[in-house]
Amino acid sequence: EDRRQQESVSSSDPYSNDPKRHPVLQINSLKPFNAEPPPELLSDSYITPSALFFKRNHLPVPKVDPEMYKLEVEGLQGGPVSFSLKDLKTRFPKHTVTATLQCAGNRRSEMNEVKQVKGLNWGIAAISNATWSGARLRDILLYAGYGPEVATKAQHVQFEGLDCDVTGTTYGASIPLAKAVSEEGDVLLAYEMNGEELPADHGYPVRVVVPGIVGARNVKWLSKIVVSEEESKSHWQQNDYKGFSPNTDWDTVDFKSAPSIQELPIQSAITHPAEGSPVDSSMGEVTVRGYAWSGGGREVVRVDVSVDGGKTWHVAQLQNAEKGEEPAPSPPPGRAWAWKLWEITVPLPTEAHELELVCKAVDNSYNVQPDSVAPIWNLRGVLSNAWHRVKVKLI
Amino acid sequence: EDRRQQESVSSSDPYSNDPKRHPVLQINSLKPFNAEPPPELLSDSYITPSALFFKRNHLPVPKVDPEMYKLEVEGLQGGPVSFSLKDLKTRFPKHTVTATLQCAGNRRSEMNEVKQVKGLNWGIAAISNATWSGARLRDILLYAGYGPEVATKAQHVQFEGLDCDVTGTTYGASIPLAKAVSEEGDVLLAYEMNGEELPADHGYPVRVVVPGIVGARNVKWLSKIVVSEEESKSHWQQNDYKGFSPNTDWDTVDFKSAPSIQELPIQSAITHPAEGSPVDSSMGEVTVRGYAWSGGGREVVRVDVSVDGGKTWHVAQLQNAEKGEEPAPSPPPGRAWAWKLWEITVPLPTEAHELELVCKAVDNSYNVQPDSVAPIWNLRGVLSNAWHRVKVKLI
Ligand SMILES: [Mo]
Ligand SMILES: [Mo]
Repeated sequence: EDRRQQESVSSSDPYSNDPKRHPVLQINSLKPFNAEPPPELLSDSYITPSALFFKRNHLPVPKVDPEMYKLEVEGLQGGPVSFSLKDLKTRFPKHTVTATLQCAGNRRSEMNEVKQVKGLNWGIAAISNATWSGARLRDILLYAGYGPEVATKAQHVQFEGLDCDVTGTTYGASIPLAKAVSEEGDVLLAYEMNGEELPADHGYPVRVVVPGIVGARNVKWLSKIVVSEEESKSHWQQNDYKGFSPNTDWDTVDFKSAPSIQELPIQSAITHPAEGSPVDSSMGEVTVRGYAWSGGGREVVRVDVSVDGGKTWHVAQLQNAEKGEEPAPSPPPGRAWAWKLWEITVPLPTEAHELELVCKAVDNSYNVQPDSVAPIWNLRGVLSNAWHRVKVKLI
Repeated sequence: EDRRQQESVSSSDPYSNDPKRHPVLQINSLKPFNAEPPPELLSDSYITPSALFFKRNHLPVPKVDPEMYKLEVEGLQGGPVSFSLKDLKTRFPKHTVTATLQCAGNRRSEMNEVKQVKGLNWGIAAISNATWSGARLRDILLYAGYGPEVATKAQHVQFEGLDCDVTGTTYGASIPLAKAVSEEGDVLLAYEMNGEELPADHGYPVRVVVPGIVGARNVKWLSKIVVSEEESKSHWQQNDYKGFSPNTDWDTVDFKSAPSIQELPIQSAITHPAEGSPVDSSMGEVTVRGYAWSGGGREVVRVDVSVDGGKTWHVAQLQNAEKGEEPAPSPPPGRAWAWKLWEITVPLPTEAHELELVCKAVDNSYNVQPDSVAPIWNLRGVLSNAWHRVKVKLI
């Protein structure tokens, strides 16, 4: 993720075009800018306000003139096609999807507590939920010449961003072609986030939104799409964003041996109360809140919460809309792109002075989170989805 | 699964039509017949011989005259359609899929060790892998009148079997319509297993094979297909084959609160050596073997094996074809229906007298198995997919 961080700091600051950010964000890296909201704010709203949405930049934010913007599409019958921003907005139906994005490194700090990993020290809030609008990637590929004969050879859709390092190397990633062209895949070239123009930090003027897939493939400041037999050759597709066994170290790792992360596994975390915070025991109960999400459009069907370190469990209330609003209808199977917030009020164990709160979620393939961090530890600190544990003091 | 077991034993034995079975099978229930192969045989062949393939019958094996056999298809435009066995074999292309089936109750015995559950006490071998041939369900539904207008209302495909209890209630289950009609779903009405006519215990003359989906939906002795707005009303769809929180008991369970099991979670187990068996330590190493599989067409990408109870891990060799044969090509994304066998030879820890062997698998959505059984314990003992642990003695 951050290999190029050092290289990109030059005398004339390439980050001078970076936008202003919300002061409440917790910064993991300033250049490139990487920051997450305070966890308790995350569960305050079902749709994360764009200013609070976690920022994960690999490179400086590029300056893009919307009048000059061109998207190139290559690898299809009849040669390259180019689209202006206006083309994307007017030639294709506008489609809206509410989708949660999660950084592969979300909750990396818990892996660092087991053993040092390489990467930004994300807490539990490198995940956010927004409403995205734009053209369907499927529609653009069909327009540009995609057909069944392409699918017999090509298997990947590569994306290139306008963000680049001092040598001119741009950010890049790819996704499976089947996901890109599926009617149910809901992959967007988004030009709006939460009903407004895409903010600079989130890819203005156009980014890819690949619901159910790791953040790293949701390429921002999109400049080029290549339909190909091969995955993106980028550093981030080939030599990063992959999972390994806990016993694999930097001397033995073979990046070719693992698949690039696409769909993410089941995840949940406690946003309230915070680690170490005092909990008022006078009411005899504690309210616990958090989020839960799974990759691949798998719907979260249950969140279990424990206040005794995982010995006994309580089933939380799930919420798929803003508080006080009507629950949203269930998404079609395989298209549950958005997280669920959850909450539960649990009676306090008698005589306890400290509690270990724990949460774990289940998706509709009945996948569950692993109990502990060490057995999923990996040198890059990705895919950190063990039960989330929070210790609080009763006062 | 077995609620009706008692009811179906009558004076004139309804099980008199049951076929002969292989003597090596380990029997969990005789009427209805439920049995699994010895685990070490399971990993001897990539394709499980039909005689050894686990048998999971809910009811007596029905006697079916292939000349009289009719399959009814209802719920589509233009009224019911009926097919003879010859129709299924001659009017539709024959399609072959290698797919692993797993009983929802596989490894239930490990849950029983935590706390008593209701159900057949399966070991680790209620899972097997076979090659199935038949007509695609998709082709039959299209022939019978399925079209996009059906999909706007119907969401499920219900199956009914010819197997029934003394009151005439037949076995039934349903799957999502999207899976049934998807070109990539590979759902079959199979009339062959491992290149031969379907055996009586596996649904002769026709069964449904729903790759990636729990065994219980792969209805045998298929008599009727109903495309519907609703799931099957059967006991097994509505009030069984669902997962619950460990704290849910028979007094508090609300079967409507959980989704019916369809895709199964990531799974693996050690088939060799067996629990408690002596291991020759003179070579200074131990060879461990097993299987790994995940539901929903997610491919197993790694199996980690530990010989020290999970403190350190080794990456096993995966095998997707018979031993000595060329590895099979990778399946298209989302269509990895067959298990992988795995094997690894690990140096023995010095001074050890006993070993705790452990395995855990990872699929290409990077879902992992949970560490322990108690937190996934559920009253019905389904979805038992914690790390598999085997203790052996060094001699
Ligand atoms: Mo990321
Ligand atoms: Mo089953």
